[in-house]
This record gives sequence, structure tokens and C-alpha cells, in this order.
Amino acid sequence: MTSSATLADPSLAALAAQYRDVRQASERLCEPLTIEDHVVQSMPDASPTRWHLAHTSWFFETMVLKPALPGYVSLDERFDYLFNSYYNTLGKQFPRPQRGMLTRPTVEEVRAYRSHVDDHMMELLEHSNDGSAVPISVIEVGLHHEQQHQELIVTDLKHLFSLNPLHPVYRGVDFPTRTVPAMRWYEHPEGLVEIGFEGDGFAYDNERPRHRTFVQRYQLASRLVTCGEFIEFMEDGGYRRPEWWLSAGFNTASEAGWNAPDYWIKRDGQWMVYTLAGLKEVDASHPICHVSYYEADAYARWAGARLPTEAEWETAAITLPAAGHFVEDGYFHPVPPVRASSGDEPEQLFGDVWEWTQSPYTAYPGFRAPEGALGEYNAKFMSGQMVLRGGSCATPRSHIRLTYRNFFHPDARWQFSGIRLARDA
Amino acid sequence: MTSSATLADPSLAALAAQYRDVRQASERLCEPLTIEDHVVQSMPDASPTRWHLAHTSWFFETMVLKPALPGYVSLDERFDYLFNSYYNTLGKQFPRPQRGMLTRPTVEEVRAYRSHVDDHMMELLEHSNDGSAVPISVIEVGLHHEQQHQELIVTDLKHLFSLNPLHPVYRGVDFPTRTVPAMRWYEHPEGLVEIGFEGDGFAYDNERPRHRTFVQRYQLASRLVTCGEFIEFMEDGGYRRPEWWLSAGFNTASEAGWNAPDYWIKRDGQWMVYTLAGLKEVDASHPICHVSYYEADAYARWAGARLPTEAEWETAAITLPAAGHFVEDGYFHPVPPVRASSGDEPEQLFGDVWEWTQSPYTAYPGFRAPEGALGEYNAKFMSGQMVLRGGSCATPRSHIRLTYRNFFHPDARWQFSGIRLARDA
Amino acid sequence: MTSSATLADPSLAALAAQYRDVRQASERLCEPLTIEDHVVQSMPDASPTRWHLAHTSWFFETMVLKPALPGYVSLDERFDYLFNSYYNTLGKQFPRPQRGMLTRPTVEEVRAYRSHVDDHMMELLEHSNDGSAVPISVIEVGLHHEQQHQELIVTDLKHLFSLNPLHPVYRGVDFPTRTVPAMRWYEHPEGLVEIGFEGDGFAYDNERPRHRTFVQRYQLASRLVTCGEFIEFMEDGGYRRPEWWLSAGFNTASEAGWNAPDYWIKRDGQWMVYTLAGLKEVDASHPICHVSYYEADAYARWAGARLPTEAEWETAAITLPAAGHFVEDGYFHPVPPVRASSGDEPEQLFGDVWEWTQSPYTAYPGFRAPEGALGEYNAKFMSGQMVLRGGSCATPRSHIRLTYRNFFHPDARWQFSGIRLARDA
Amino acid sequence: MTSSATLADPSLAALAAQYRDVRQASERLCEPLTIEDHVVQSMPDASPTRWHLAHTSWFFETMVLKPALPGYVSLDERFDYLFNSYYNTLGKQFPRPQRGMLTRPTVEEVRAYRSHVDDHMMELLEHSNDGSAVPISVIEVGLHHEQQHQELIVTDLKHLFSLNPLHPVYRGVDFPTRTVPAMRWYEHPEGLVEIGFEGDGFAYDNERPRHRTFVQRYQLASRLVTCGEFIEFMEDGGYRRPEWWLSAGFNTASEAGWNAPDYWIKRDGQWMVYTLAGLKEVDASHPICHVSYYEADAYARWAGARLPTEAEWETAAITLPAAGHFVEDGYFHPVPPVRASSGDEPEQLFGDVWEWTQSPYTAYPGFRAPEGALGEYNAKFMSGQMVLRGGSCATPRSHIRLTYRNFFHPDARWQFSGIRLARDA
Repeated sequence: MTSSATLADPSLAALAAQYRDVRQASERLCEPLTIEDHVVQSMPDASPTRWHLAHTSWFFETMVLKPALPGYVSLDERFDYLFNSYYNTLGKQFPRPQRGMLTRPTVEEVRAYRSHVDDHMMELLEHSNDGSAVPISVIEVGLHHEQQHQELIVTDLKHLFSLNPLHPVYRGVDFPTRTVPAMRWYEHPEGLVEIGFEGDGFAYDNERPRHRTFVQRYQLASRLVTCGEFIEFMEDGGYRRPEWWLSAGFNTASEAGWNAPDYWIKRDGQWMVYTLAGLKEVDASHPICHVSYYEADAYARWAGARLPTEAEWETAAITLPAAGHFVEDGYFHPVPPVRASSGDEPEQLFGDVWEWTQSPYTAYPGFRAPEGALGEYNAKFMSGQMVLRGGSCATPRSHIRLTYRNFFHPDARWQFSGIRLARDA
Repeated sequence: MTSSATLADPSLAALAAQYRDVRQASERLCEPLTIEDHVVQSMPDASPTRWHLAHTSWFFETMVLKPALPGYVSLDERFDYLFNSYYNTLGKQFPRPQRGMLTRPTVEEVRAYRSHVDDHMMELLEHSNDGSAVPISVIEVGLHHEQQHQELIVTDLKHLFSLNPLHPVYRGVDFPTRTVPAMRWYEHPEGLVEIGFEGDGFAYDNERPRHRTFVQRYQLASRLVTCGEFIEFMEDGGYRRPEWWLSAGFNTASEAGWNAPDYWIKRDGQWMVYTLAGLKEVDASHPICHVSYYEADAYARWAGARLPTEAEWETAAITLPAAGHFVEDGYFHPVPPVRASSGDEPEQLFGDVWEWTQSPYTAYPGFRAPEGALGEYNAKFMSGQMVLRGGSCATPRSHIRLTYRNFFHPDARWQFSGIRLARDA
Repeated sequence: MTSSATLADPSLAALAAQYRDVRQASERLCEPLTIEDHVVQSMPDASPTRWHLAHTSWFFETMVLKPALPGYVSLDERFDYLFNSYYNTLGKQFPRPQRGMLTRPTVEEVRAYRSHVDDHMMELLEHSNDGSAVPISVIEVGLHHEQQHQELIVTDLKHLFSLNPLHPVYRGVDFPTRTVPAMRWYEHPEGLVEIGFEGDGFAYDNERPRHRTFVQRYQLASRLVTCGEFIEFMEDGGYRRPEWWLSAGFNTASEAGWNAPDYWIKRDGQWMVYTLAGLKEVDASHPICHVSYYEADAYARWAGARLPTEAEWETAAITLPAAGHFVEDGYFHPVPPVRASSGDEPEQLFGDVWEWTQSPYTAYPGFRAPEGALGEYNAKFMSGQMVLRGGSCATPRSHIRLTYRNFFHPDARWQFSGIRLARDA
Repeated sequence: MTSSATLADPSLAALAAQYRDVRQASERLCEPLTIEDHVVQSMPDASPTRWHLAHTSWFFETMVLKPALPGYVSLDERFDYLFNSYYNTLGKQFPRPQRGMLTRPTVEEVRAYRSHVDDHMMELLEHSNDGSAVPISVIEVGLHHEQQHQELIVTDLKHLFSLNPLHPVYRGVDFPTRTVPAMRWYEHPEGLVEIGFEGDGFAYDNERPRHRTFVQRYQLASRLVTCGEFIEFMEDGGYRRPEWWLSAGFNTASEAGWNAPDYWIKRDGQWMVYTLAGLKEVDASHPICHVSYYEADAYARWAGARLPTEAEWETAAITLPAAGHFVEDGYFHPVPPVRASSGDEPEQLFGDVWEWTQSPYTAYPGFRAPEGALGEYNAKFMSGQMVLRGGSCATPRSHIRLTYRNFFHPDARWQFSGIRLARDA
């Protein structure tokens, strides 16, 4: 699983540059934050920013530096326990729902921890002259892992801030609006297709192996479902009428008291939405976001359609550019595409919102989890979750790819998750 | 969806006979019971026997008699609310977890309700001379529905009795034992296969449409996993070591304190199991049973194998006879096959235990739920559950078929659910 | 603690007669019940009737027959575990919230258990000719214990039946009504008073020792608060306005969604109440009932008054007759007094409804719990509960007395508990 | 209730000085803290330090400045909602369990809020030259209120830090030890006594009115129960044997898994205790601390004694000096008394640990809650809690007095609560 390289390998310099970029990107996301913002865990599913910063460093320390850098000394051995997320192979873990109870190490101490790890990673990548083997592929996992946590920093902060009646602004920005074009449908023929990753670049284990699967004839929608369309669903009794819902979805919605997407509140008859740019009026032209799988599925049924399978999504996306908005665009909110589709292809399959598929997250045929701790990265979560595709406005642009499989529980709403429709031909 | 028939149709007499058989089978299951046994609900997932007897009658009354028998008068209109299980189309439902709170109508009154319904069903099937249309296909659904509840009567009673330290005996019987043959593997080639139901007989909507799917090369185990094999897993730390488990599974097992299959207790160093024949020593040669999906999946990983997909299972089972033990055999417990396999085919794919597959319960491509109340029968549960195949020792023999898809949540253990292994070729 | 007696003692015949009376009274309460009604436990605080019948028998078997009747053989030793309520001294107990899970022993078997115990109690009381000592005082506890369970049979059945939309009628009866007289106040001077039990008759340990306490000048209301008065409180926003409530009470009411006394439902603008005579219109002249301590306390504050202390209640009640309605009157519901008070004393201090006092249930000064199992009867519950006085329409008349201290948690509503006001002079 | 004063009143200067002292004491407690430490809420019963700092300022702003300082402008009107603890009279409150979700206003902003309030309080107390009335008694309540929150800052921080495996040190200090003298008993005669507050100084409403009560003859222990004595109880099966416990206490201990006082952990056979000076070995000579009422009551029963009533405690303490350790002593942990008792009076009734009494927290006879918001200060909590007396090592010395009634639920352990025994004479 692990490819290695000696110093002579010219790719190490590029990897070092990439390492610095990715690590700095995490820290840049924290620039608008107060120390207080780094500390709090708003729900068990979310983690404090401070924890994300420390855990991603722990990942490099544990997976790379300890095995590969001779003489490496940890800054504090107790961090092994504090910042291990879920790797049973690597020992016990501080309980996840308690992550917000730790006020020490402080943010400054966590930054020192990051520097300590970064210095030694640079030593490993740039200055080792004893021919030590560098576990390149593990470092690549570490960088993509850090990018995943960058997205979580954004989504977890949004959840935290949303609980504050002061509606904190993370980054002030105006959102574009658009005239929404009519929905069109792109038809795909039935046939045996190949999906999944193969080749030289990076991909997670769960995108492998590339394999054949049979797809029936289907149609995919030209654009994302908008807030305006979702409001129509709501006004038609969407949240009150069980006939469009999965039974588990309707129960969840009823017990949780859902009557709108997450972060929406009604004020003087107007739907408002909390965004990282503050509380805003809902823009009917924007992609709908912060809906669970259950809501996406119910909306689709109401609309006389369904959600796509991941094979359908991947087959349709194969020739499309990753042209949506990502975290680097600085909106931290899904907005309309820069240019409307030319009319010969669906728009915005990548970026802005993760698109719920109707595919439960399971192993691809022939999947084998890697040996060791990295085998716990994805495989053990293949139960009870649904696949989402395409990345969001909180995803680093270089993190996404055609075969990328994100997965969340069907009731999760705090990710930037939206709706792309499909239907039988 | 609904085919109709006039009196002249000779199939009505056969249907009437089948109706009587199925309805009497429910009542025969209650013969060993005291009145007290009929009343109690042991957990929200289970229902009192009395409720099963009433609800199945309500089904015929509501789906058949009210729409199809002119002048039909309900015995008590309040039963509409009390005995509707989950059909929102048909009005509000008495809360499921409260079903055990109803001591009235009494068992005797419920039996009168059954007779009332039966009398009018007979009138509809045998004596109507006004050419009224008989909704044959709905009646067929009702009969299969009743058979499903017959299985639930058995499993729910077992759960209830298991909570009683007196270990009530439902039916005293001795179980056969066997010398367990070595596990062999039957290989199947890769290819495009067809699964799902097509044709004239009865099938549920979720078995349709018959459709193509691509199956990789795989091997299926010759027999079920035994109690003896499962004890080896347990003795190897099976319930304590997370490396073989899905994360959700290990959490469930830890929180629930599982350390053995359901109904097992250790007494003086010997594993005992509560059966409907009373408390018995665990027989190492018997198929393992009352394990959740999580346990089945963990066992499979420990054994270096995996669970089959439902396409793999159905493809392998296509030529095999339904030769296992069903409810009519009177064991109410999975036992070894009558005859060991001749060696050229896997044994016991049908009967004794439902076999967990690794397939989440989702709609087949092109699936469309029927209009009206029957559209709620299966479709709205297509979330968060796993498919099981083949029927069990509590299933009526005439209820099962090759394409039958049963489904339960991955933590469910009170059904007669066991383990068939598969592996990549 | 335990006085004994030999056969020669003429009081044994009287005790035997009393034993038969009390035991038969339990069984008479069950006459209107179906077998189904005996089995179900409607909430953890309540118990199935079958359990009450068995547990009271277990009490005599365990406390009297096993120690005092030579050669006594238990009907089934497993009942020791099944029917022990909470006596740790006597071994482990079947979990209280699971009492409704036991469908065996059946009602008939429990009746046989009662007969077995009764036969041997009679042998002990009437026929022992070997001079064996009879533990008279323990038997007396057992009889009063059984009377307590008679009251619980009534209140637990009412709770169970109230959950049934069919509104079962336990005993059909018409309730008297009245013209409600104006509230008057009886003043008592300050002074050192004595409360608690002393003397020869029966009393529980928690009524002892008789002791001095200082009472300030106070006034006690001439009659119980009525449904009509309580409706005024409700219509003044009683359940929505926190200013009259204890903080814990308002939280409890909000979380539980209380907006009326227990068993009240509004139908077409009319308050209805479920009674053991079926669903009835609320009669404004009836004593208010099925209110928690929190509601009683909030009502009193709204009315510019307070609840009495138990010393105030007992001091006021000392000369009053126990003239209210008890279980023998057959109403199973609080009704107006037979005769209005003559005007020189408060009416209805005894019977109809238990009267909440503002006294937490604690040990009297100098209290010592008895040695052994009977020491667990009352003492270990002296925490978190409030004292109620005077008995109710579900209390056997011979069970109540001036010094009797009943106790329930402040949120309990399923007992026949009502409101007597007091105020500072 | 509110006495007023004009500027001419010479007592205002003293009050201003007292105000500055109390306010600064709060801030001094925060000096050892990082910003991170201010933010987190470790359980619903506790609050973040930042919240305590803000809420106490809100109290002066709302109760004093807004009604009494003409032209006062709030720093941020939204704080009315954020920092109202539980005063329904003053509007809705941000939910208590969510206090730790607020990362804004920041610590610095909260300090600015404090300064804003302090400046205007000084203006009111020192510089108003328009004869405006100063609500002296409300300011006194505000100062005592702030002292209560100083104690909570200490106890809430201790709870928070205790969850951190790094065992943060709040203030490093060595604790004194002692040779424990034998327990002696001081006897008090029966008689009518007066308890409660009367006179000119400050006292809370719940200490009033002074009133007569009758006390039986009793004995009070000469000293507090020590850790060494409590370990004997533990080693005698204290936490496993129900016979010494209230039923609710044993259930609480079992469900919570208590097997030692709070903050104790066993390491290599040695009991350690987390203190604000870090993790220390338990010193057998120290007063036992962080025990609930349930544990105190069980210990007392095991020791053949009982807890005192509050009347007994107050009667015994009337002549004793407040000679124990308070927050100013800087231990933040209960330690032995400076000088052993001379032998003619019980030692350490004040300071070090709050002493559980057996008295439920109820209104004194004749108690009337004040009108308005201050009426919610104490009265609405008179249910379900127990009285503690004497102050602790976290109490400001000037905050405590003979008649002071503290109150907590019987399962609370995070306060510095310990055990003083009493017994019947």
C-alpha cells in the first residue's frame, strides 16, 4: 500500500510544497476566528476547530513521523490519546462527544504542536540526507485528510455560530443571484459502465476498485434544485404530508420539528438563512442546501423524480469540468454558476453543494481495506450512510475528483448538501 | 395493480380455500397460548399476539370488504384507529409502542372480530351472486400479509417469553443434531444476470421489476455457519475486538452489552439458549441464529470472507429446492438439514434462518410503488435496513420464494437470522 | 417490634376474620376485570393487577409463613424473585419496569398461589395446636400492606384504562353533584403541639414517634378546592404563567405538556374526565383530583394561599370524623360530601382525595427504622417525596387514620390527590 | 423591600468601596485562566466563567442601572436575553444548557461589558448630584449574588478541568495535614429555639422570618468526617450495600457508577483526588468532600449516626467563630483546621466544606417572597433540594453567616460538600 522514495526523488520537493500549501490553508481558515471560536463543540457530530488543527497534526506525527523519521520525539505523548479520532489500531481515544471539554492544550499550544510537526515533516521531506524512506502515499493520504478537515472546520463553525443569537459573521460577502433557467433533462442509455478509480493520482480506498456495473436508461437534471423550488414543496405541505417521505425520514422530521432546511428561520413572513456572511434573506435562485437525504428524497418524490444513483452520477459527470464554487471562492455558501450551461450539458455537478445520491455507502465489489490503521479510514463506516458526490462550497478545489465518494447519515444536515434530480427514462 | 374477478371465475373457490387455510394457520399458532400471552408487547419492535390477530383482520376489512362488499358494516368503527399499523393513507394510527396497553377488545372479542371478517370474506368469495368484482390481487396481498404476521407472532412470542425467568415452553420438542461437514465453496462466474420477480404468481412490489445487474466472480459457502463456529469467533475475542466490526456495529454491541447471540446465557460454563421448546444447551452443529447484521458481518470478516449480495444469493439459489425447515415443521428453531448436501450444491438456502446479505434494502431500478394504501406496504421502508433472504423456521413454507426480499435494521436480533458466507473468487 | 401470641389467645380468631376480609376485598376489586386487564403494566410507577395479587401473597409467605409455620413449603420457590418488590434484605428482585412482561404465572396460577398462602395462614391462625408463636404484628403489617395495594389496584387500573381509546368502564355509577358553599377559614392558634402515633392500635413506623413540634397561627380551608375553581385557575393562564409555580414544577409541566389535571380531555369546548365509570363531563362542584404537588402548590399561590403542613393538617383533623367517601362507597371518584359542614368545622378531611401537604416526607425526630426486612418498608423512601393526608375514594375505610402519612413524588398525578388550602393568620 | 438613599448618605462611599472589592475579586479568580478556560460549559448544572462574569454584570445593569440611573444606555440590548439566568419576570432566557455554545461576545467583550457596568455603578454611587435615589438593598443583593457566582466559578472550573486528562493546575499549593483527633459529641438540650435572620445586616429572603421551632435533645460531632473515615466506609462495601442508603440514593449511585467521592480515581492501589492544585494523593486527615447528600446520609447511617437538621446546626453554631478556610485562603480544597478545637466546642462549622443537613429546603413559616424579579431569587427553588450550612473553601469569607441557607439537589457532588454527623441523645 505504501510507496516510498529517497531524497533523490525530485517529486519530494513538490510534495513538500504541497504539504506547506495544504497546512497553511487550514490556518488561513482560522484567521477570522477568535480564540473562543476554536474551543467549543456544538454537537457530537462536530468538533472544535482547535481539535481539527491538532488532530490533523497528530495524523502526520503518528502515521508518518513516528514510523519514518528516526529519532523523532513527540511534543507531548499524551496527545496520542487526546487527538486520535477513531483508530482503534492506534490505541484508546478520548471520547468524541467530550472534545469540547478540553481547554488545554490551548490554541497557542496547538499551534506550537503544528509547528513542531511541520518542522519535522520538512526535515523528512527536504533535509534528510541519510536515505531514509519517505512514505509518500501515506503523506498524500494525510494531505487529503487535512483537506477533509478543512471542510469540517467550515461546516462545524457554521453550526456553532448558528446557535448564537448574535449571528456572528465569519466573512462578509455579497452573493450573486440569477434568473433560474427551466429544468432540462439529459438522457443516458442503458449499458454496462465502469465506475471507480484507477490510475496514478490519489484516491481513497473506497473509490477502488474500478469495476463494471449495469445502468438502466435514465435522465439527469440540468441543474440543481433551487431554494425557490424547495419553498414550493414546503408550501404544498412538504414537511407535513407523509406520502412523499420515507417512513424513517418522516419520523425524524417530526421528532426534530423540521419545517424548513437547516439554518432557515422565518422572520416577518420572510425566510431568512444563517450563512457565514451573517443572516440573509433566502435567495430563490440559489441552490437549496442543508437538507438531509430524507428531505432530498421527499422533495424528489414530490417533484415526480428521484435521486440519482452514484453510478448514474459518475457516468454523467465523466466529461464535465469541476466548474462550481469551492472553498477558495470565499462564499462559504452555494451560489448560482458563473455561466449558465450552454445547453448541452448539466451544470454545476461539482462544487457548491454535495449532491445526495440514492446509493447507500457500501464497498465496491472486490474492495479490500488496507492493512493497519489506514484500513480504518473508510471501511468501517460502510453502514447506514448515503453517498454524496461532487464537493461543495466548503471543499478545497484540489480535493475533489470524479470518483470521490463522500458519505453521511441520512439525517445529517450540517454539511453543504443539496439536490440533483434524476428520473427513469 | 388490482385484477378483479366475477363469481363465475373458478379460481375464487381456490382462493376461498386458501383464505381459510391461512387464517386457520394463524389461529393454530395461538393454541398453546394462555390469554395472558396474547396481551403483552415486549418491546416497540414487537406486537402482542392479540394485535397481530386483529390487525390482519383489519387488513381484509379495510382493503377488501369495505371497498368491495356492498353493505358491509364494520364490527366496531373504532378498530380502524386501533388496528391500523402504519398506513397514513388510511388515517391516524394508535401509537405503535402502546399496542400492549390495550386490554380491550379482549382476546375473545378479537376472535369475534376475526369471525366477522371471515364470514364476510366468505360471502364475498363464495356467495356473491350479483357479479360484484372481487379484488383478487388485494386478497392475495392480504394472505401473504397474514403469513408475515404469522412469522412475527412466533418471533414476538419468543422475545416475550425470553424475558420470563420461568422460561415458558411454547412447544416441547427435541432437536436433531449432526456431524458438521467441512465448508466448501461453490464458484459462480462474472456476468450480467437477471434478478427480481416476473411472471404470474404472487410477489411483493419490492421484488419487481425483474432487471439486469452485473455480478463479479464469487464463491458461496456450502452450508450455514454453525453455533460451534460462532463460539470460536467469540472465544477469539469476537465481541471485544473492534478490528472485525463496522464502527456502528461495534458501538451498538458495546452499548447493548452484547457478548453472545440473542437468547444465549452462560450457566456453569455452558452456553444455553432459550428456545420455544424451553432452555436448552447450545448445540454446536446447529445453524447460528439470532445474530444481527453487525454480528454476521463481523463474523464474516473474522472468517476471511464476507456476506453475499442479494444478487449473488438469488443467482446461486435459482436452481435449489426450498428444502429447509419451515414453521410447519414445528421446531421453531433452526436445525441441521434432513440430508447433507450431495456435494454438488449448497444446502439449506431456504428455511431455518434468514440469511443476512450485504445489500441495503433499496428500490430495484425502475421500481414504482403502487397507488394508494398498498403503496405504503414496502416502499417507505427503503432506508437504513438490510436485505435477508430465504425464509426461516418461523416462515410458512408457501410464503417464501426465490425473489423474496425480507428486510430488517442491522441491529435487529429477534428474528431467526443467521449467516451464509461468500467470498471473492 | 414483633409481638407474638399462642393459640390460646382469643385475639387470633378476630385476626383470622380480619385476614379473610382483607384478602377477599382484594379479590372483589378484580371481579369486573377480564384476564387481559390483570396483566399489563401501564408505566413503571404502576403494576399489573396480577402482580399486586401475587406480591401481597408473597408478603405473607415470606414474612409470616416461612419463619413461623413449621414445615411450610412454598408453592414455587421462583416466586421469591418474581414477587419481591424492593426488599434487598430478602434477595434480588425482578426489575420493577418489567413486571408487565410476565404472562406466566397466569392469573389462575396466581389465584392458586393466593389460596395456597391463605390455607396456610388459616392453619397458622386457627389450627396450630403445637403452641407455635404467631407474629401478630407482622400479620397486621401484612394486612395494611394489602390494603395499600388495594388502593394501587384501583389507581393503576385507572391509569391503564385511561390509555385505551375505548374508555373502558370498570363500574358504571352516577355521581352526586352539589351547590358549592363559599370557602370559609378555621383559625388555629400558635403553640407547641404533639403529632404522630402513640398507643395500641396499628400504625406504620413512619408515624412514630409521637413528638412535639411548634405550629404558628394558621387558617385551614373549610372544604376542598373544586373543579370549578381549578378551571378558573386554568382560564387565568394557570399552566402557562410561571409566576405561580415552583421552578421544577413549571419545567415538569412544560416538558410533559400538562394543560389540565390528569385524565382530563377537552371535547367540543367541554372538559371531560376519564373516570372508572367511563368518560364524563367534568362536574364543577366535585373536588379537584389527579393534580400533582406542583399543580396544587401553584394553584394555592394563585389563590393567595398555601398548602398546609402535615402538623397543621393533623392538628386540625384531630377531632374530625372520617366521614368522606372511601373505596367501599363504590364511586372510585371523589364526590361532594354527603352533608355540607354544619359550619363549625372543615369538611371532608378524610376520604375522596389525598390532600397534598407542603411537608417533604422525612423521618420524625427520634425515628428508628425496624430491624430486618420491615425496616425497608418506609424508611428508605424518605427523600424527594411529599406527604399527603386523609385517604381517598380508593382507600379502604379501615386503612386510614389521623396520623397516616402517605407520600408520593411531587410530579405524581395518578393517585386520587387533591387540594386543601391553608394560609397564614 | 428596597431601601433607598441619596448621595448625602455617607454609607454610599462604603458601598462603592465594597462594590469595587467584590467585583475585583471575581476578576482575580480569573487571573490563572486562559481565554479557552472561560468559554466551556462542562455540564448543564455548571456555567462557563465568561457567562458568570457577564451574568453578574447583567444583574446590576438590569436590577440597578436601568431602573435607577437616568439616561443609562445598555452596551448591547441583546445581552438582556443572553445573560438572564432564570428571571421570567424579566423576559425570556437563552437556554441554560446552551451557555457554552456562545463564543461571542468574547472574553474581552465581556470585560468591556463589566467595565461599562462598573463605570455607571460608580457614577450612580459616587457622582450623581441630582439626588437620585440609590437602591441600596438591591445593590447589596447584587454583591452577595456576585459572591455566590464567585464560588460557582471555582466549582464549575474544577468540574471542567477534571474532565481533562492533562489535570490542569489552577493554583499550585501544598495542603497541610494533621493527626486526626477522636470524634467527640456535644450535647444540646431539647427546647423551643429561634432560628432565621433578624436585624440590620444583609440576609437573603429565605433566611427570614426568624421563628420558633422545637428541637429535641441531640448531639453534634466535634469535627468533620475525614477521608480516612470515608475510606473505611468504602472498604466496608459502602457503595455496594443498599442497607445504609436511601432508595433513591442507591439507585442514583448504581446508575451513575459511583464507587468513591467525586474527583477520586484509583491509581496503582492508591486513591488520588483531582484538586485545583492538580492530582494529589488523598490525605486521610482531610475533611471528606464532593459527596452528595445521598452519600453523606448513607455514611451517617453506616456510622450509627445521622445528619443534623438545619435547626440543630444553627443552634449549635450560634456562638462559634467562622474560623475555617475560605476562598481567600487560596487552597480551593478543604484542609484541617489551623488549630484543633480546645475541646469545649465543635470545630470548623464554617468554611472548608458545606455541611449537608437532613432538612429539605422549604420556606420558613411566614415566609413571603419579595415582589418582582427578586422574588424569583430563592423562592421558586423550594422543592427537591437539601439545605447545606456553613460555607466552603470556595466561599468568600464575607459572604457567609450563621443563618445562611445554601441548597442543592441530593445528587449534586460538584460543590465542596462534606459531612458533619449528629445523633439522638
